[in-house]
Order: sequence, then C-alpha cells, then structure tokens
Amino acid sequence: MSYQNYIEYCNEIKKLNGIAALLSWDMEVKMPKQSDRSFRADQSALIQGLIHERQTSSSFENSIQDALDQSGLSADQLKCLEISKKDMIQSKKLSKEFIEKESKLTSNAYSVWEEAKLKSNFGIFQNDLEKIVELQREKAEYYGYEGHPYNALLDLYEEGSTVSQLDKMFHDVKSKLGTLIQDVLAVQSQKTNFLTQKFDIASQIALNKEILNILAVPTDFCRIDESSHPFCTSFHPSDIRMTTRYSENDIMSSIWSTIHESGHGRYEMGLQVINSGLPSSSATSLGIHESQSRFWENNIARSQEFIDLIFPLLKKYFPSQFQSVQSETIFREVNFIEPTFIRTESDELTYHYHIMIRYEIEKLLVSGDLNVSEVRDYWNDSYKKYLGLEVPNDAKGVLQDVHWSFGGIGYFPTYSLGSFYAAQWYEEINRTKSVSEMIRDSRFEEINQWHAKHIHQFGRLKTSDEICQSATNRSLDFSCFERYIRGKFNI
Amino acid sequence: MSYQNYIEYCNEIKKLNGIAALLSWDMEVKMPKQSDRSFRADQSALIQGLIHERQTSSSFENSIQDALDQSGLSADQLKCLEISKKDMIQSKKLSKEFIEKESKLTSNAYSVWEEAKLKSNFGIFQNDLEKIVELQREKAEYYGYEGHPYNALLDLYEEGSTVSQLDKMFHDVKSKLGTLIQDVLAVQSQKTNFLTQKFDIASQIALNKEILNILAVPTDFCRIDESSHPFCTSFHPSDIRMTTRYSENDIMSSIWSTIHESGHGRYEMGLQVINSGLPSSSATSLGIHESQSRFWENNIARSQEFIDLIFPLLKKYFPSQFQSVQSETIFREVNFIEPTFIRTESDELTYHYHIMIRYEIEKLLVSGDLNVSEVRDYWNDSYKKYLGLEVPNDAKGVLQDVHWSFGGIGYFPTYSLGSFYAAQWYEEINRTKSVSEMIRDSRFEEINQWHAKHIHQFGRLKTSDEICQSATNRSLDFSCFERYIRGKFNI
Repeated sequence: MSYQNYIEYCNEIKKLNGIAALLSWDMEVKMPKQSDRSFRADQSALIQGLIHERQTSSSFENSIQDALDQSGLSADQLKCLEISKKDMIQSKKLSKEFIEKESKLTSNAYSVWEEAKLKSNFGIFQNDLEKIVELQREKAEYYGYEGHPYNALLDLYEEGSTVSQLDKMFHDVKSKLGTLIQDVLAVQSQKTNFLTQKFDIASQIALNKEILNILAVPTDFCRIDESSHPFCTSFHPSDIRMTTRYSENDIMSSIWSTIHESGHGRYEMGLQVINSGLPSSSATSLGIHESQSRFWENNIARSQEFIDLIFPLLKKYFPSQFQSVQSETIFREVNFIEPTFIRTESDELTYHYHIMIRYEIEKLLVSGDLNVSEVRDYWNDSYKKYLGLEVPNDAKGVLQDVHWSFGGIGYFPTYSLGSFYAAQWYEEINRTKSVSEMIRDSRFEEINQWHAKHIHQFGRLKTSDEICQSATNRSLDFSCFERYIRGKFNI
Repeated sequence: MSYQNYIEYCNEIKKLNGIAALLSWDMEVKMPKQSDRSFRADQSALIQGLIHERQTSSSFENSIQDALDQSGLSADQLKCLEISKKDMIQSKKLSKEFIEKESKLTSNAYSVWEEAKLKSNFGIFQNDLEKIVELQREKAEYYGYEGHPYNALLDLYEEGSTVSQLDKMFHDVKSKLGTLIQDVLAVQSQKTNFLTQKFDIASQIALNKEILNILAVPTDFCRIDESSHPFCTSFHPSDIRMTTRYSENDIMSSIWSTIHESGHGRYEMGLQVINSGLPSSSATSLGIHESQSRFWENNIARSQEFIDLIFPLLKKYFPSQFQSVQSETIFREVNFIEPTFIRTESDELTYHYHIMIRYEIEKLLVSGDLNVSEVRDYWNDSYKKYLGLEVPNDAKGVLQDVHWSFGGIGYFPTYSLGSFYAAQWYEEINRTKSVSEMIRDSRFEEINQWHAKHIHQFGRLKTSDEICQSATNRSLDFSCFERYIRGKFNI
C-alpha cells in the first residue's frame, strides 16, 4: 500500500514532466514564429514550479520513507525508492523560486538564441547567456560539490562524472585522436562535392521517412518534424517526437540528424510502460542516451552496408545528383575526415574536438575564469588551435548549438561519452554476430533487441557504469573506439 | 494592491487553461495516430483538477472580496470582479473529482469517437456517449436550474439561454425557414457537379493558405493544420491554432472550414493582450464566437464578390477542373439550397434544420426522455422528417460531429444564434458602408475593424445581448437573417 502511494506520487510528477516537455516541444516545433513567446515561458515556469513542489513535498517524502519501511519489497523496488530519495535530496537544494526563474529565463532565451543565430550575431544572445551562466554557477553552489564547481553540473547529465575524470578522458582523446586522424589522412583520397549539390527539401522529407522505415523504427509511434536544432523528446513510449533539420545544400545533414534522433527515440520506446513515473522507467543518463543515438548514426548508418541499403533511395529521389556516383564513393565521402565548423555535421573523429572545446569553455565559465563577453573569441581561437579553422561568423561558430540557451551547461561531454560507449556496444555485439551482416540483411530489429536487452529495460535501475559492466564485462574503455575506427578505415 | 492580487490569480488560471488547450490541440492534431492516448487523458485530468482547485480556492475568493472592498476601482474593474465572483459560485458547484472524471472520460472518448466515425459504427461510441450524457445530466443537477435541466447546460455556452427561448426561436425558424427555402427553390437553377470532382490535397493546402492571405488574416500569428473535425483554439492573441479538413472530392469543404475557423481566430486575436486572465480578455459567449466564424464563412465568403476574388486562385490550382466555369456559376453552386447529410457542409438555410435536430435530441437526452441507444434511430428519423433524407451510414449521420465526445451538450444552438447575429452585423455594417464593395476592394481589415470595435475589445465586459444592443441598437432579431437571405437570393 505504501509502495503504491509512492508510485502514485511518481506518476503525478511524470505527468507534469510530460506536460513541460510538450510545452517546450510545441514552442520549438509548432509555435508560429511571430508569436509572443513570453506566455509560453510563463506556462513552463508554472509547471516547473509545480513539479518542484511535488518533488520536494513532505507527503512525497513520507511516502518514500513509509515504503522503505514496508517489508517484502523486491530489490528493484528498493532501488527505485533509493533513487527517488536521492533525487529528493537534490531537488530540495533548489528553491521553487529558483526553478521558476530558471525556467522563465531559459524559455525566453530559446527564441533570443534562435534570433541571434538567424542573424549570426552573438551580441543579441550575450545578455541572456550571462544570466544563464550566472544561474548555473548559483545552481552549482546550491547543489554543492567536491573539487571543481562544474562537477555539480556535470553530475546532472552523467551521474558521477567529474572534471578530473573528463580532463583525463579528453587528455587521452587529444593525444590518441591526433594519431588516428594522422593515420586516416595518410590513406584518405580526395574529396568530391556531390553531397553538397542542391537537394529539394520536399524530397528530403520523403527520403527521411523511408530511411526510418528501412531502419524498422516503429514510425506509428513517432513524429518527425523540423526545428532549428534537432532533438528528440518523449511523452510516452508510444508517443515519441523527433526533429531534424533540412539543408538544401547538404543532403546528409537531415539524414544524420534523423537517424541520430531515432536512436534516442528507440531508447525511450524501450523503457517500461507500466508505472512510467518510476526511476525504473526513465533513461539512466545522457551518456547512455547518446550511446544510442550515436550508435545508430555512426556505427550503423555511416557503414558501407547501410549506404548500400539507402543507395537506391538516394538515386530514386535525386536521380541527377547521384547519376554517376557509386555507393562506395558515398561511403568514403560521408566518412571523410576533415575539420569543419558545425559539430552536428562533423566526422566521427574531429567531432570530439568540438566537444572538447565546449567542455573547456564551460569549465572556465563555471569557475569564473572566463566571461561570457570573451566566449566568442575563446571559441574562435580554439577552433583555430584545434581544428585549424577561421570561424567565419557566429552562426557557424559560438551560436551553432542550442544547449546553452536551455541552461544545459554540462551536457556536451555526454556526446563524447556516448560515442565511446557506442563503440564498446559495437565491439560487444560483434563478438557473437556480425553487425555488418545484420545491416546488410536489414536485421535492424535484431540489433535493437541487443540494446533493449542490455540497456533499455533497466531504466535507472542500473547506472551507466553498471550497464557497461553487465553488457560488456568491463567499464568504459576508449580502446574500443580506437579499434572501431581502425577497423572502419582499414588503418 | 488587492486588485493586483486578483489579477495574478486570474492569470495563473489562464496559464493553466492555455496548457489544457495545448494538451487537447496536440492530441487532436499532432499525436501519432497509434499512440496510447490514455496518458494524455491523465495529463488533461490533472490540469483540469488544478484549474478547478484554483477557481474555487479560498485565497482566490478572498482576493475577489478584498478587491471588491477596495475603493477607486473603475466600472470595468468592478465588472470583472463581479463576473469572476459569479464564475466562482458556479465552479464550486462541481467537485474536483467530478472535473477530473469528466476530463478523463472526454479525453478518452475523443479517440473512441474518431475510431467509431472512421468505421462508421455508432455502437463503438455508444458506451462512452452513455457515460457522457449521464455525467452531463449529473452536472445539470449540480449547477441547478429553473424549468428544464437542459437550461443548466445551455447556459454554459450562451449565458441566459433557455429551452423556452430556444423552443420559440426554433419554432420561428421552422416556419419561416420553410417559406424561405420554398422561395429560393422556385428560382434556383439546376445543380452541376464541378465542385465535387477530384482535387488533390497538396494543392488544396496551398490554396487555403492563399485564401487566408487574401482575407488579410494575420497568418504570422496562426497555424492551420488538419484534424478530423475543424476547430480553432487560442493560446494567446499572437498564437492561434486553426484546423481544417481536406476532402479530395469536395474542393469547398476545406475552404469553408478554413474561413469559418479564421473568424473564430480573428475574435481571439482581437481580445485584449494585457491581463489576459481577466474576464475582459475572454470571449463573451459561443453565440457571439459563432457570429464571427459564420459571418466570415457565409456573409463574406459565400458572396459573389468573394468568389470573384478567389476565382483566379481556383483556376491557378485546378486549371482543368475550372476550365469552362464562370465565377457566377460557382457563386450559384456554393449557395445551392439542398438538403444534405453533413452539417458543416450544408447550405445557409437547411443548416438550421441540422441544429434543430441536435437541439431536440439533446433536450430529450438531458430530460431522460431519450436513451443513447435510441439516438441513432431518432437522428435518422429526424433527417427523414425535416430534410427528406435517408441517412446512409453513421459517419454521415449521428457520428459526424465531435461535440458530444467532449461533453459539449448545449453547444449546438449557438451555431444558429451565431448565424442570426452575423446577419444582424451584416445589416448594420451595410447601413454606412457597402459590404459588397468592401469585399470587392479587398478591404477585409476594414470589415474586421467593425467587429474589433463593436465586439472583440469588450471581452466579457458585455454580454451577448449588450453587444447586440450597443452594436445594432436592438436585441437579436431573426428578421435580419430573412432580409439577408432574400437579398442574397433576390427573392
């Protein structure tokens, strides 16, 4: 009975979280561009306040304690209670006023960022970003931390993740990535430009839908819409909302985004439906979430076998553009290693420089060693230093990503973690079955089943590391990524 | 200060109402068809419960009373307070449990109705409808009434509206409508079928967008989507969501729906933006709301001058279908008086038989003199009796309208009221300016300004009758409708 009470409190919080997600999805995807968005910011703040009220209410706290005192609970039930208790302790560190203030600020900042990006003018966004950074630094103080204040924020996206751990990871990455890139460049042939011809958007939309079908994504339970920055949000395992973005001059941009977000969608579809408010029905961390999206985007879709599968579709929708092209050429082209400006469109190797730059900037912003007014210059200097690029404008530079507008400082490192986890899943699946063969034979549901079995079903009952240990018999191991890359590029 | 407190309570309720509207819009318009909708029903019930809690809270009640005791308030401020006080007395008559139950029931019933309509099987919907009717009868008892229990429900949509009043109106309508129809039929030429050829949907979508532009609807603040049953909902005067529906075999169906809903949209756009939670910023009644939608649909769009305006567009999108057609023929065709099955696609005269039939059925359902199991037969018998039609199936009969699924018993009569009000606005505007000329010259913003000035700006500060009195110097007068029809058909 007590445990049932606890479930009901969790489910009520889940309902409110779903409503908050809808308010935000609608604003980013469907709201008329000229609407005064402040009313939506007010609605979001109201709901965030209600969520916080419930997350910290003494009746919810009592329901957790009563349930913990109950006899005969299963290990999973106890685990849920412990996670909820820990969540509550965290939630109580922030006041309702802080939550509402943050929600209102970030809802409004979204459209400011959108405008700034459209006009390619960091100055438009700077004031909002200053407030956001200030609020995140305040938040770190409320949560408390050992060592670096950034730790408090990193922990929100990847539990247990710290600056000292990530410093070490990015140090390894920096040295080993350099070698990998050198080795690939030594064997890489010239780049052509057939993927950046003109591709009409209506055909891209139709093509993306067909690709989801090829991948056996259950599209009856999804929507795929367009937004400034692709994302995936889930209201229920049977109602997944993914977005992509279409560029008339880059056929692959929308395809990678669609496939990436469908990986997130699959994770959400694989979560338990019953008692959907319990920790057992929520994704365990963003690192693991990104391991899903990046697995499908990179390990699956950037393979020769997958390109072979979609090759007839590319020719069907864009016959003149792909007239004299071979599938092998496309494979080489979509895996061409080359420093570029946009993170989401970059190759699998230089990608991690993009993350490292953001990680360094965030670390400095949170410690107070970098001002928001200096961020653009720092960004541009870093792109020069690590990627050898002169950033031409803010839209292709510091304004390209949505994350800071919603306060997501601490989010970026999970992308690199996700790639490295994905490579580890890839190696593990390959121990018993050939991933290449499964792709060739369109056995995508079989591939998804591995993830469902080893990752999705557990929700938060296992941490990232526990999932990694139980699925692959060891913790995250960067060498899997190295082997995956060396295998793919034959180096 | 007290009045400011009161405003803040109202604004919080408004935010929650906007969230409820989004939950419902999203479910009807964007949710994947296969999603398990019960999670959305749960979310809606939660929000409806929160709204009811606030509408009936003692702190809100105190804020109203304190403000009423405050000196120096304007007449409009006092009026708002009185309306809110009355609303609160009404809200208190229903329990939170009742509200949540009704919300959950009607959210779920929507998809049941959709399925029933798709399969044209009233049996699928019957069980839900029984529960809905039972709940509405219960509601009438909670609210209380004088005379007929239906009065309690009619009052929700058109304040002060009663069975004795509507019986009288429909009695007049029945006799006078018969004469009008006879007189039109005597001069009406043969019907052709060029409006029911095949019209591809993509072109219809583009055409409808252009028509909204012609009408000077501020489309930057709107969306137009597709739904089973067209509707309009507003989240803010700068964020209006309209829907229409496209039929491949009927070019005019989507056009009428789009223009109809844009009339609703204009009313919502014309409401005051500041303190949007106050009664001064809400539409006064559904009758007046329908007077807006039906004014634009019928008095404006079904005119020869408007058909002349869109004629080039029709030819542009459907050159072969409109190859040998004259604008005058289209005008005659879209005003062809003929009994048909579907209310929303019927002509301006027989339309009111559709309403009368629904009114009679609802009256009998609420008094308990008709069972839900008998509704289909009663419906079909009435269509035979009043319109001389054999209803071929439930989709074209008793299942055609969405209203009962959301519990909207008492809603239908406002459509007839709306038409008659619209005719009265039409006559009034024509006293000083020629509506025909304004249409011919595309002076639609000027036409809208009349409505903004005499209707929109007041919100609920004036009742339907007060608006009618101040705009036209008299109460609702059916003879305006008669004159409008006689003028239009030259009879």
